[in-house]
Amino acid sequence: MAEAEEIKHPERDTQNLHQIVDMLQRYRLIENLVHKQEMPRHDLVESLVHKQNLVALQKKLDELHPADVAYILESLPLNDRLLVWDLVKAERDGEILLEVSDAVRETLIASMDSEELFAAAENLDTDEIADLAPDLPHDVMQDLLQSLDAQNRAQLQSALGYPEGTVGALMDFDMVTIREDISLEVVLRYLRRVGELPDQTDKLFVIDRDKKLIGVLPLKRLLLHDPDVSVAAVMVDDPITLHADEEADQAAQAFERYDLVSAPVIDKDEQLIGRVTVDAVVDFIREESDSDMLSMAGFREEEDLFATVWKSVQNRWAWLAINLVTAFIASRVIGLFEGTIQQLVALAALMPIIAGIGGNSGNQTITMIVRALAFGQIHPGNARKLLLKEVGVSLLNGVVWGAVVGVFAYILYNNIALGFVMTGAMILNLLLAAVMGVMIPLLMHKMGRDPAVGSSVLITAITDSGGFFIFLGLATLFLL
Amino acid sequence: MAEAEEIKHPERDTQNLHQIVDMLQRYRLIENLVHKQEMPRHDLVESLVHKQNLVALQKKLDELHPADVAYILESLPLNDRLLVWDLVKAERDGEILLEVSDAVRETLIASMDSEELFAAAENLDTDEIADLAPDLPHDVMQDLLQSLDAQNRAQLQSALGYPEGTVGALMDFDMVTIREDISLEVVLRYLRRVGELPDQTDKLFVIDRDKKLIGVLPLKRLLLHDPDVSVAAVMVDDPITLHADEEADQAAQAFERYDLVSAPVIDKDEQLIGRVTVDAVVDFIREESDSDMLSMAGFREEEDLFATVWKSVQNRWAWLAINLVTAFIASRVIGLFEGTIQQLVALAALMPIIAGIGGNSGNQTITMIVRALAFGQIHPGNARKLLLKEVGVSLLNGVVWGAVVGVFAYILYNNIALGFVMTGAMILNLLLAAVMGVMIPLLMHKMGRDPAVGSSVLITAITDSGGFFIFLGLATLFLL
Repeated sequence: MAEAEEIKHPERDTQNLHQIVDMLQRYRLIENLVHKQEMPRHDLVESLVHKQNLVALQKKLDELHPADVAYILESLPLNDRLLVWDLVKAERDGEILLEVSDAVRETLIASMDSEELFAAAENLDTDEIADLAPDLPHDVMQDLLQSLDAQNRAQLQSALGYPEGTVGALMDFDMVTIREDISLEVVLRYLRRVGELPDQTDKLFVIDRDKKLIGVLPLKRLLLHDPDVSVAAVMVDDPITLHADEEADQAAQAFERYDLVSAPVIDKDEQLIGRVTVDAVVDFIREESDSDMLSMAGFREEEDLFATVWKSVQNRWAWLAINLVTAFIASRVIGLFEGTIQQLVALAALMPIIAGIGGNSGNQTITMIVRALAFGQIHPGNARKLLLKEVGVSLLNGVVWGAVVGVFAYILYNNIALGFVMTGAMILNLLLAAVMGVMIPLLMHKMGRDPAVGSSVLITAITDSGGFFIFLGLATLFLL
Repeated sequence: MAEAEEIKHPERDTQNLHQIVDMLQRYRLIENLVHKQEMPRHDLVESLVHKQNLVALQKKLDELHPADVAYILESLPLNDRLLVWDLVKAERDGEILLEVSDAVRETLIASMDSEELFAAAENLDTDEIADLAPDLPHDVMQDLLQSLDAQNRAQLQSALGYPEGTVGALMDFDMVTIREDISLEVVLRYLRRVGELPDQTDKLFVIDRDKKLIGVLPLKRLLLHDPDVSVAAVMVDDPITLHADEEADQAAQAFERYDLVSAPVIDKDEQLIGRVTVDAVVDFIREESDSDMLSMAGFREEEDLFATVWKSVQNRWAWLAINLVTAFIASRVIGLFEGTIQQLVALAALMPIIAGIGGNSGNQTITMIVRALAFGQIHPGNARKLLLKEVGVSLLNGVVWGAVVGVFAYILYNNIALGFVMTGAMILNLLLAAVMGVMIPLLMHKMGRDPAVGSSVLITAITDSGGFFIFLGLATLFLL
C-alpha cells in the first residue's frame, strides 16, 4: 500500500483528467490519420511523435497516486481506458485494481490474462487479495493460494470466509502486537529495529501467550509516558473491540461515534485476529451511501459510466419490470371505473394529481422511518407515537392541499361536488400514504428484511392504485 | 473531547436505549399514578422509589459516551428527551450538544437558559464553539467571546468566518508544531514534557519562523528513526495540504483517496492555520449522504424524528407544493385531450403506464449523470458518448417494454391500433426521458447549480406531462 506521504503533487481537481484526455485525443487523432491512410504508415517522424505522446502519457500516469489513476480509468470510455491501463506499470496494477469501482474493475480484469493477474495480485496483502477474489478467475486464485506461505494462506482463507458487509470483510492483518510485561523503552527499540509500522497505526495491540487481546497501547501513550514504565501500566485494558462476524455497519457506527482510527478484531475466544482501520471504514461508508442511492433509483448494482448499452439494460431492467407490474395494476384499477370516466371525463385529467401527491407524501414518511430504523431509533415504545405524528402531518397536509385541489377542480370544471370529491380523495390518500409509510418499513424490519430496499416502490404502488381507487370510487358514489 | 480509550463498556447496540426507555416508563408510570391521585401524593416509600428511578437513570447516563447519550436523546420523544437531558451532568452538556443532530440540538438548546448555555459552551474548544454558534443566542456568543483570551478569540472569530461546507468549517486548532532544526530526541522530550497530544494526531507540523508550513513529521517516522537525526532529515517536505476556503467535499475526497488521518490547513501565504482530522471528515460524509437522502425525498432540512406535526409540515410542504404545480400541469395536458378520452375511455386507464415507466427510466439516467458529475467524471469529451449510451438504453428498453405494454393493451381492449400507439408512445417517452435525463443535470452543472437538487422533480414532471401528451397525441392522430 502506498504511503500517503509519498504523493508529491496532490492535485485533487479534475486537472489531471483533462490533461490525460487531451493527450489521448492527440494520440487518437494521429492514429486515425494513419488508419485512414491519409498519412504514410511508415513515416518515421509522425510515428515518432505518435510514440512520444504515449511516453508522455505514461510519465504522467507514473506520477499519479493509484487512487488518482483509478479515478481517471473510471472516467474514460472503454477503449481509452484500456489504452491507459496498458501504460500503467505492471507492479502498480494490483493497487489500482483495489481502488477502482467493481464495475470498472471487471472491465480491466477482462483485458488481462492469468499471468498478468497473478503478477498484479501477488504484491498485495492477503486482505487485499481477498477483496479482489470475487473478480479473479479460479486458476489465478489457486495459484495465489499456492504461492503463499502457511501463515498468509491461512489469513487469506479466513479473509475469504467473511461475507461482504461483515467486519471480517473490512479487516486487515497489518498489526503490531506486543506483550504487557515489557517496558515502553523495549517497545520503542523493537519498533526501530523492525523499521516498519503499518499505515493507520494509532495503537499497538497487547496480547497474552494465547493470543488473547488484553489491551491496546495507543501510540500517544507510548510517546508521552516515561520509557521506563511497563506496557501493562499504561495500556488501555478494556478497549473497544470488534467481532469479525459483526455487521460492518456496526463497526462504522463505532468509528463514527468514538472517533476511532483503528480497532482490534477478535474472535469468539477473544483471540486477536486482525484490525479495522478508518480508511476502510470511510470507503465502506461511501460505498454504502452510493449503493443506497443507486438502488433507490432502481439499479441492480453499481454501473460503469461507460458500460455497454446491453450491460446497462441488464442492470436496470428489473426495476422497470417491477414498476410495469405496479403500473398494470393501477391501470386495471382505473379500468374498473371506465363507466364513470365515460360519464365525467374530467376525472381522467384530475386523477393523476391525487395519486402523485400521495406518492410524494408517502415517500417522505417512509424516508423518515427507514432512516430512523437504520439508526436504531425505533423501539416498541415510540412506534405508535411516530404513526400518530405522521397521521397528523398527513391530515393537516390533506386538508390544506385537498382544499387547493378542490378549488382547482371547481374552477376548471365549475362543479362543486367534484371539488369536494377531490378534497376528500386527497385527505384519504394522504392518510393511506402515512399509515402505509410507517407500517411497510416496520413490517419489513420485523421480518428481517432491509426496509430500504423496495419500500419506495411499494408505497408508490399503493398510493397510485389506492389513489385512483379512492378518487374514482368517491366520484362513482357521489357524482353520478 | 473525551478520549475514545476512556470508554469502558462500549455497547454499540440498542441495549442502552432499551434500558433507558424501560427506566423512563417505570418513572412515568409512578408519576401518572401520583398525578391521578390514585396514590397518596406524599407517600414516603413511593416517592423514594420514584427518586431512585431517576438516580439509577442518571448513573446509567454517566457511564455512557457523549455520542451514545446523543443517540439516546435523538431516539426519545420530546418530554422524555428533556427529562433525560436534565439528568445529564452539566459539564457534559457541551460535548453532547456537539454530537446530536441539528434538529434535536435546537430542542435541547430551547430548554436551556443563557447561563446554562454559557457553562456548556465554555468548556469546548474554539472550533467546537463555532460549530454550535448558529444555534446559540447572541448574548451567549458575546459572553463567550469576551471570556476567551486574545488567541482563542481570534481563533473563534476566524472559525466563525468560514461558511458551512468549506474546509474551514471542518478545521480544528489542536495541533502540535515543531521546528525543522531540532532532533527527534528533542521532539520526543518536548512531547513528554507537554504530556498531551491531541486526538487523531498522526503527524506533527513543521513550521518556520513565519509560521509557514514547510513539512510534516508523521509519528511513524518519529518512532522509527534514530532519535539523533534532525526533523528536517526525516520530515515529508511536500505534504498534502488543504486550503481553508476550499470545499469540504474536496477535503473528503483527499482523505478518502489518500487514506489520511489528519491534514494541515494553510492560508494564501502558506501559513499553517489549523488541521482537519478524519473524524470530522467521517461526520461530514455521513451528514452529506444523509442530507442528500432527505432532500431527495423532499425535506427542506433534517427533521427531528419527534418533531411536532406543525414543524414537520413546514419542513415538507415546499416539495409537495412543487409537485402539486407539476401535477396541475400534467392534469391540464390531459385536459387538452378530454375529447379523445371521451371517445376511447381505455386511454385513461393506459396513460399512467406510459408516464410512470418514463419517470422511472428518466430517474435512472439522471442518477447516473448526477453521480458522475459529483465524482468529476464528465468532461466535454465524453458527454456526447454518455448521451448516445442513454439513448441506446432507452431505445432498447422502449422497444422491449413498449412491445409488452402494446400486447397488454391489445389483449385487454382487443384493439391492435391501440397496441401500436402504446408501443410508440413508450419508445418516444423513454427517449425523451433519456435526453432530458442527460441534459438537465449537465445544464444545471454548467449554470453553477447543484444538479442533485430538484433534477428528479424536473425529470418526473417532464416525463409525466410529456408522456400524457405523446400518448394522447398519438391516440388522437391514429385512433380517432
